[in-house]
Amino acid sequence: MHINPDRFLTSLHRLRQFGASGHGKGVVRPAYSDADMAARDWLAGEMRDAGLDVQWDAMGNLFGLAPEPSLLIGSHTDSQPEGGWLDGALGVMAGLEIARAARDAGGPPVSVVSFQDEEGRFGVTTGSAVWSGALSLEAADALTDTAGVSLASARACVAPREVSSIDPRGFKGFLEMHIEQGPVLDDARERLGIVTDIVGIRDLRITFDGQQNHAGTTPMALRRDAAQAMMQFNALLCERFRNVVTPQSVWTMGHIALHPNTPSIIPGRATFSMQWRDGNLDRLEHMERIIRDTAREIGEGGFDVTFGPLLALDPVVMDAGLRGALEAAARETGAAWRAMPSGALHDATNVSRVMPVAMLFVPSIGGISHAFEEDTREDDLVLGLRVLGDAVARLA
Amino acid sequence: MHINPDRFLTSLHRLRQFGASGHGKGVVRPAYSDADMAARDWLAGEMRDAGLDVQWDAMGNLFGLAPEPSLLIGSHTDSQPEGGWLDGALGVMAGLEIARAARDAGGPPVSVVSFQDEEGRFGVTTGSAVWSGALSLEAADALTDTAGVSLASARACVAPREVSSIDPRGFKGFLEMHIEQGPVLDDARERLGIVTDIVGIRDLRITFDGQQNHAGTTPMALRRDAAQAMMQFNALLCERFRNVVTPQSVWTMGHIALHPNTPSIIPGRATFSMQWRDGNLDRLEHMERIIRDTAREIGEGGFDVTFGPLLALDPVVMDAGLRGALEAAARETGAAWRAMPSGALHDATNVSRVMPVAMLFVPSIGGISHAFEEDTREDDLVLGLRVLGDAVARLA
Repeated sequence: MHINPDRFLTSLHRLRQFGASGHGKGVVRPAYSDADMAARDWLAGEMRDAGLDVQWDAMGNLFGLAPEPSLLIGSHTDSQPEGGWLDGALGVMAGLEIARAARDAGGPPVSVVSFQDEEGRFGVTTGSAVWSGALSLEAADALTDTAGVSLASARACVAPREVSSIDPRGFKGFLEMHIEQGPVLDDARERLGIVTDIVGIRDLRITFDGQQNHAGTTPMALRRDAAQAMMQFNALLCERFRNVVTPQSVWTMGHIALHPNTPSIIPGRATFSMQWRDGNLDRLEHMERIIRDTAREIGEGGFDVTFGPLLALDPVVMDAGLRGALEAAARETGAAWRAMPSGALHDATNVSRVMPVAMLFVPSIGGISHAFEEDTREDDLVLGLRVLGDAVARLA
Repeated sequence: MHINPDRFLTSLHRLRQFGASGHGKGVVRPAYSDADMAARDWLAGEMRDAGLDVQWDAMGNLFGLAPEPSLLIGSHTDSQPEGGWLDGALGVMAGLEIARAARDAGGPPVSVVSFQDEEGRFGVTTGSAVWSGALSLEAADALTDTAGVSLASARACVAPREVSSIDPRGFKGFLEMHIEQGPVLDDARERLGIVTDIVGIRDLRITFDGQQNHAGTTPMALRRDAAQAMMQFNALLCERFRNVVTPQSVWTMGHIALHPNTPSIIPGRATFSMQWRDGNLDRLEHMERIIRDTAREIGEGGFDVTFGPLLALDPVVMDAGLRGALEAAARETGAAWRAMPSGALHDATNVSRVMPVAMLFVPSIGGISHAFEEDTREDDLVLGLRVLGDAVARLA
């Protein structure tokens, strides 16, 4: 196989024109947005040109299929509301380039996939969760985004394309190349990371309902201020996590919505996202108990507490065979690399339910991701592509 | 003068049709909205029918003028984003009914006003602030609402009406009837409150800028999470206020906006409103120093801190003569009443700069206001109207 770095980089830069943010190389391409669907239609054409059989499923996951049995390579092309150009896109474009090189070389068969809603507009890696059977389509349809739109209504935009059911049993394994999205490789001046395992994630929407009232006439002692309840919850939680978490544990309140959210009114309602991640399943569950208990305890101070559905993905260990091929290819380059866990969640977590998976990281400059400034040196992108291609050849 | 309670209640209920929320008697009539302007146009017609000379100023304050010199009676007809039917509306409709009764009786001359943006979409009691000279029109025009809309662009909707400048020197004094918006009268089963003074208010928008990043790969120790900074600020502030505030002091974070506000991204920016009120000027200023110092101290942990303009109204004492007339009228009814401070801000605060002012309260059921559920028993509304009318007769 002859990898073509220029063809790869040209496709990668072409993709970021869909939903270009106008800030650096950043993109705004959330799942099922016009920009996301336009990018997927373009990608379907590229897959066809690469000799692949284009198939969509009902979720809007897009496959370019080689004859069975094949390796599956890919990631996702949807982005965060303010996303970088490489998150997900890199893995899909690497898969596309390797499929082209394989076509030119007469083999091995390589299929390509772009999963839908990896970035969790509705849930957590929703597209690959449904495809792998981790989540039913019915349950997914009932999920809503932070604006209250249901996934069922959002995915109606997929319908004009012919949809089918793609059998995971047609694939020998799944390889996902991705930016690290953290500072480890960049800080250590290493160029490649071979993933050992992916941390698990939990995501829970919590609502405190108090009493909306006038911010001038309601004495502090008589208030049931939902924003204050949320902030007390946060303070208490940080205290209680102290003896439970490790330096690898993370937790985030990334989304907050007050009601009615205006300066002269005591907030009657606060809804927020509570997300936590850890490599250890017991610790994830221990953290969940603390979160629920702490919220209920705050609730006893005069608030109704409502929990949304728990979105959960357990920690996953990478397949030794696939990982070995990536390590052998990395070693051969002579570049500095390391074996490392993934603190970010990836589609590979879901796909591991139905086939062996492995992942390859390249550095993120300054460790920045999920932001317009996200970037990676182009020689690192190309080095990663070559290692992925070499691993595919070794696995053939 | 013969007050007509039915005519008064009919007008009051007619007004709540403009911007009716569909939840109880609640209204959605923020300053300069279509519903607000439609209500003002209807009110202008009612004023004309009452024999008053209708005048608008450039801010959209609406006056119905009797021959000089007259008493001015009124309040405001704009509402909170989720407002009650009586907040402001009561004082304007009471003024209208007394003006009608005075017209029927051949005097005394009573003018009526509905000030604009009392509810602070843009600032704090913005319309009466500009009219009374507390705020220049130029400075007001530069204010923005939480969505970033400027007052200058919002008030463009007033322009089709002929606008003029209304001289405050034409009035002998200002009377404002209002719901209490707090629990004091309702708890004590008292039916009237004669205001002694109105507390002062400060409102400051604060922004913490940290680093937007991936919520999975960024270790807790390396985060600059703007939402966490905001919550630490809140906790520290509550602690530091402990030895400074009195049971009459209040403070509120009613508006919070995170950026980008999505579960899987560490918030890079948190903007929020910090509002505080107190009857004592020194204490208001002491609280301000603590707020600014605490925010700057949090900022030293790795955040840029930005303060918006300080919106400030000082505490105001009611005029003894006007207040005496209200007290005499209240005493005459035989109903239970009390003298009390106002924890809520009112247009009377601004108007006190240019003429004597006094205020009359009726109870709020359950102390609830700035919410759709806000309400007052109709016999209390009518009792208040009668006291106001009697006071006007005593002052003639």
